[in-house]
Amino acid sequence: MPRRLATGEAGFAAAFEDLVNSKRETETEVGDVVAAIIAAVIEGGDSALIGYTRRFDRFDPAETGLAIGAAEIEAAVARIDPETRAALELAAERIESFHARQLPTDFEINDPAGLRLGLRWTSIDAVGLYVPGGTAAYPSSVLMNALPAKVAGVSRRVMVVPTPDGVVNDLVLAAARIAGITEIWRIGGAQAVAALAYGTESIAKVDKIVGPGNAYVAAAKRHVFGKVGIDSIAGPSEILVVADAQNDPSWIAIDLLSQAEHDTAAQAILITDDADFADAVVASVEDHLATLPRAEIAAESWRAHGAVIVVGSMEEVPTLVDRLAPEHLELAVEDPDALSNRIRHAGAIFLGRFTPEAVGDYVAGPNHVLPTARTARFSSGLGVIDFMKRTTTVAADADGLGAVGPAAIRLAETEGLDAHARSIAVRLNRR
Amino acid sequence: MPRRLATGEAGFAAAFEDLVNSKRETETEVGDVVAAIIAAVIEGGDSALIGYTRRFDRFDPAETGLAIGAAEIEAAVARIDPETRAALELAAERIESFHARQLPTDFEINDPAGLRLGLRWTSIDAVGLYVPGGTAAYPSSVLMNALPAKVAGVSRRVMVVPTPDGVVNDLVLAAARIAGITEIWRIGGAQAVAALAYGTESIAKVDKIVGPGNAYVAAAKRHVFGKVGIDSIAGPSEILVVADAQNDPSWIAIDLLSQAEHDTAAQAILITDDADFADAVVASVEDHLATLPRAEIAAESWRAHGAVIVVGSMEEVPTLVDRLAPEHLELAVEDPDALSNRIRHAGAIFLGRFTPEAVGDYVAGPNHVLPTARTARFSSGLGVIDFMKRTTTVAADADGLGAVGPAAIRLAETEGLDAHARSIAVRLNRR
Repeated sequence: MPRRLATGEAGFAAAFEDLVNSKRETETEVGDVVAAIIAAVIEGGDSALIGYTRRFDRFDPAETGLAIGAAEIEAAVARIDPETRAALELAAERIESFHARQLPTDFEINDPAGLRLGLRWTSIDAVGLYVPGGTAAYPSSVLMNALPAKVAGVSRRVMVVPTPDGVVNDLVLAAARIAGITEIWRIGGAQAVAALAYGTESIAKVDKIVGPGNAYVAAAKRHVFGKVGIDSIAGPSEILVVADAQNDPSWIAIDLLSQAEHDTAAQAILITDDADFADAVVASVEDHLATLPRAEIAAESWRAHGAVIVVGSMEEVPTLVDRLAPEHLELAVEDPDALSNRIRHAGAIFLGRFTPEAVGDYVAGPNHVLPTARTARFSSGLGVIDFMKRTTTVAADADGLGAVGPAAIRLAETEGLDAHARSIAVRLNRR
Repeated sequence: MPRRLATGEAGFAAAFEDLVNSKRETETEVGDVVAAIIAAVIEGGDSALIGYTRRFDRFDPAETGLAIGAAEIEAAVARIDPETRAALELAAERIESFHARQLPTDFEINDPAGLRLGLRWTSIDAVGLYVPGGTAAYPSSVLMNALPAKVAGVSRRVMVVPTPDGVVNDLVLAAARIAGITEIWRIGGAQAVAALAYGTESIAKVDKIVGPGNAYVAAAKRHVFGKVGIDSIAGPSEILVVADAQNDPSWIAIDLLSQAEHDTAAQAILITDDADFADAVVASVEDHLATLPRAEIAAESWRAHGAVIVVGSMEEVPTLVDRLAPEHLELAVEDPDALSNRIRHAGAIFLGRFTPEAVGDYVAGPNHVLPTARTARFSSGLGVIDFMKRTTTVAADADGLGAVGPAAIRLAETEGLDAHARSIAVRLNRR
């Protein structure tokens, strides 16, 4: 059974603190192995990449080529059924459309002192997208990572995907084509991250690497950070559902399980103001588990990390939610907007009784790459600006420099940086 | 002498590549020491903090208190001269005003399928600002780090600053008051970073830590990353000056030295289309060095890392600049805007003959915390949104879910995530 807390009970504060601080990730220590692989790819380029791929993925890229070409992609697209293809296309269209709204605007101002100040956004030139192989290969993740880069204007959008035993994943290739990926390489693991960061004879290096991966991929991304940009390292999925007694317990139960089924380390939490409703949801979870294909994973997540919190009043909810800062937050209540407006820390919020979180995983439009492990306190889901960067501009003429320069000289002298001061002073004396 | 390259010469490509890839940072390996200090502060709280401060800063915070209180700050402000205070106030006003323009806007849309989709920004709750002690204590950096957090709406803006031998830096305290810092603690090093990230009896933990520091501070920030957010780890300063022969060589020479004087690992590069002008600048650098207080540092930086690149035509400039992706870029040419618009990768651009980079370090308004070591390819200077985060919202009713739900069910089934599919299906069947 998941842990059960009630705000009215003695010991709630300590039990809640324990829930907030509970660790679910088991970090595998693979730093040394990863460092060796990266060094080998820097040194050996393609031949190192081919060697690791032979060893870890059990096929020979020297025969197939490292790249997955247009014909192979077309063949994969042809193999998927029309309904799935239509679903991918609808998802892509909606994701692209929502992300296009995020494009930032430049500005330039003429300030009272006579300086012209500006800020402008430009896209990153080249981005690498890591896509896991095997069962963890999700076409929806290809769309969610690739489309914001496309919207941002990134010109090289490079995908790497391991193909264990040489078997390509048709859905992943179809999603890549729909999302406008410009290159695909059949490589994975730390060696793929190294190739993206440092380049090889075949693969030109990129400027930023995004996308999920196993412990080796995560360690490799940390290792190359600084040389290239990386996205955040995602932890196990989380859902926090706030539901009143007017909901169907079965709907809320399956919402909790929709995240629990991801991973035994996932976390599903219910907050409700009705203890009987909480009981009904807990019972319904068991009913669903009886027929879910991934019941074993979901059940372990629910029992080990799940929680039910009964509050005395929904007024207590915002404070609890902000402390948990969940990746996904469902507000299945009468006036979800009013409650949402009082919440500050959550990756994505799903409003009302007809908005299960899963709709956001696929087709709603906002990104499903979201901050986990309470990092929503200080970080955001993936967005268009993660594939762009800002440059500020300053333009002064003699008058403008005359207006603000003396203060800058004073501060530079105060800080003991005389060349700074002199670079302004020489210009003021020549007016 | 700095290295000299000319685009017309044989071997230019290789020499330029070498310049682009030259390493200037010497990383000190302090990870183990830092990990031990952080563990001790987590375990020991205030008493560990006091112990480390006694040992490293040679005074007893048990006597002075860990906090620097209002009276002590007022006394420091009273000790600084009025001209410096006015300069700090002008700088703060201009920085705050430019950063206020960066405040992002929320949006909410009703899409054709009947879903309501939104994106909203909220500020981080609590931010810690690390300020170095001793000679590297720059009041301008206090303004540049604290004011964007204030503009963003961060309510707790906490400063930590080591006070070696118990001596406070009046200018830093004055800048902190002007920048609206809400708490100041007289601690530094890895122990201060640990206190900010994990909290102690006296110091409440924060959500993000920014600001420059030595190798121990940088390692500590890396160590606590994930638990809290951090800013980027800044490398040695850089300036790239693009200047035609119409400039006064002395002005350009002192601009190069204004960054060279920061650090022996700093880098100053001149690009010009006139070899005689290049000679004149190089000669003028020597003249300035004869009278600069920090000549020793500046000369070592210039000789070890400086470079002069003579181009055949200014048309060649954008490609070279984008490869170097400099932290600071000066365009001292006739039409700087035209050239600037062709450049994609630079932290900050200074336009025209009367805009020395130093004006941007203090009073122009844009931030002086900027991406170094070619990271302007994928990252940005510090800004208001670094102290905020985004939450996306989705609201569907029965009709909206009916419109997009079937595609989501299809994709969820394809990915083998049946609880995801069922969470939508149960709602569609109940319509």
